[in-house]
Amino acid sequence: MKTTAVIMAGGRGERFWPKSRNSRPKQFLSLTKDGETMIQKTVRRLLPLVEMEDIFIVTNSAYIGLVHDQLPDIPKENILAEPCARNTAPCIAFAAAVISRKYEDAVMLVLPSDHLISYEELYVSTLKKAIAVGTAGKNLVTIGITPAYPETGYGYINFSSRTAEGNYDAYEVARFVEKPDLPTAKEYLASGKYLWNSGMFVWKISSIMENFRELMPEVYSGAVKIGEAFGTDSFNDVLQREFSAFPSESIDFGIMEKAQNIYTIPGSFGWDDVGSWLAVERINDVDDDKNYIEGDVISVGSERTTICGGKRLIAAVGVEDIIIVDTDDAVLICSKNNTQDVKKVIAKLNEQGRTNLV
Amino acid sequence: MKTTAVIMAGGRGERFWPKSRNSRPKQFLSLTKDGETMIQKTVRRLLPLVEMEDIFIVTNSAYIGLVHDQLPDIPKENILAEPCARNTAPCIAFAAAVISRKYEDAVMLVLPSDHLISYEELYVSTLKKAIAVGTAGKNLVTIGITPAYPETGYGYINFSSRTAEGNYDAYEVARFVEKPDLPTAKEYLASGKYLWNSGMFVWKISSIMENFRELMPEVYSGAVKIGEAFGTDSFNDVLQREFSAFPSESIDFGIMEKAQNIYTIPGSFGWDDVGSWLAVERINDVDDDKNYIEGDVISVGSERTTICGGKRLIAAVGVEDIIIVDTDDAVLICSKNNTQDVKKVIAKLNEQGRTNLV
Repeated sequence: MKTTAVIMAGGRGERFWPKSRNSRPKQFLSLTKDGETMIQKTVRRLLPLVEMEDIFIVTNSAYIGLVHDQLPDIPKENILAEPCARNTAPCIAFAAAVISRKYEDAVMLVLPSDHLISYEELYVSTLKKAIAVGTAGKNLVTIGITPAYPETGYGYINFSSRTAEGNYDAYEVARFVEKPDLPTAKEYLASGKYLWNSGMFVWKISSIMENFRELMPEVYSGAVKIGEAFGTDSFNDVLQREFSAFPSESIDFGIMEKAQNIYTIPGSFGWDDVGSWLAVERINDVDDDKNYIEGDVISVGSERTTICGGKRLIAAVGVEDIIIVDTDDAVLICSKNNTQDVKKVIAKLNEQGRTNLV
Repeated sequence: MKTTAVIMAGGRGERFWPKSRNSRPKQFLSLTKDGETMIQKTVRRLLPLVEMEDIFIVTNSAYIGLVHDQLPDIPKENILAEPCARNTAPCIAFAAAVISRKYEDAVMLVLPSDHLISYEELYVSTLKKAIAVGTAGKNLVTIGITPAYPETGYGYINFSSRTAEGNYDAYEVARFVEKPDLPTAKEYLASGKYLWNSGMFVWKISSIMENFRELMPEVYSGAVKIGEAFGTDSFNDVLQREFSAFPSESIDFGIMEKAQNIYTIPGSFGWDDVGSWLAVERINDVDDDKNYIEGDVISVGSERTTICGGKRLIAAVGVEDIIIVDTDDAVLICSKNNTQDVKKVIAKLNEQGRTNLV
């Protein structure tokens, strides 16, 4: 059976302002010194598993040009433009319906476009196991990440001790849980039965479509209509009408928490969701003073500081535990304790109508 | 007797990088929201005492254009260009020799160009007292500042209990002392006999020239030659030759510490030497979070932070006790504890040959 991949690339990534903007969100940025953008990395590391012509990108219509520019080898017809944001369930149904026009059935990997993986071989072998389990029966597989510490910013997957038939690496999912507080997260880790929810899924087109038909019938029927119109003159009209009518719903809530035959495969391959500017020092090398420095920077006695320079000189003198990001029209200076508040800057800019800076 | 003023404006002001540059040092900057530069303030607050045509500016030849631009009412012949930097003693001798060509004798106020004064009326009345004392006999008068706290960055003047004849505000100077350590500074304040050395002086031209003749004879004879050549075709040649041969010496060390009849008048008029970026929050109003903010800035939860914006947006998120200064080609982010290290940035830039940024 063919293996296909769907890369979800519609997100905004406000937490990487001022580098990320509405016009160029996080997945289209490079946050590593190699210059490769997040979505380029996502595609490249899939190539041992999926042919380029079977990789599909679902994104906001505003980013079609960016996808073409950054991924010129992806066939144009594989770049699917959502007319509006409706969370992951409609996105996946849309892609599944389009792929089902190309293949009677196929394995479908569903992957975020803005995560980093350090151990790409381990990642590939984990996905291979997931493909094996996802090809059997009507299994829905999600990749869980073995936690490294009690993170409170992620959802968790609670797995039971039952494994999938013939595969001792795939555990039945007991439940999905929301972001915990710190004591709860510590309990999760101590129990040895919780994994981080990575948002990566593997299943057959036929399996996920059957689940949509049962659990989200309105999304199912809309997606079928979109799939039928794909390649015809009426496609844009049908897509616009049907997609806009979809509820905004995550695949976790809409399908995974309600379906049968949900398995998780624990993975450990240096996964990082790159959720805020704090990630930059995690995913890059730091110097002896624990600084990450990129660009034209003079540091005098600064420690544990992340500096992403732009075109101008940045002089950092005696500062500690802050993040400095320079761009042509805005510079961010942010305490490491307050990276979530970068969103408040964007909110203020929107209030002030300064959309050119957002 | 005419009152004349000599404003010393040759300094570099490295501590205000990146706003100050070799091409535009501190005295030519505005560090207050009123937009008036330091040297403009210095001249304006003198006008109750001195006529514009009797104000002389001694500066580096590279800054002649800046002085003309910022002080168009100062006669061109009153702007004296030092061919090289030789500290304050040669600077003052040069000015005194030039002024003695205009007036047989005159009172001479000698003033830095880059200090701030909050209480200008009190400043003027203090100078009036100094003029009265400086006009009598051969007195040399220096203005001492009543200390507000045990500053370790200033030199101090130790005064005796003897006052000048007929003037109970002018105390004989016992000695000048260098920058003390903190325990010593605390002792100075506790003794009630030490004032900050402000670098402001008042005397007659005849008094200071006689002291040069006695204590720095080589400077005296060179200055006399420069004065004789003033207004003639040979002036530039004589100035170049004589001035370059002067030793680099401060007036404090060269004259004040060795001369007789030295008096100090204690002043208390909101004096600030504006010695580093820390001064900006002292000399300007701060907001409820103790931030000083100038320019296009969005602050989210930042406290006790000084931000001098340039043309771009600065977003300061959750930062505390730092100084941010933005210019077109460089941005400084500096801990308030390390403002003296700004000089190290300049040293590194010079090492790297990046003189355009210095």
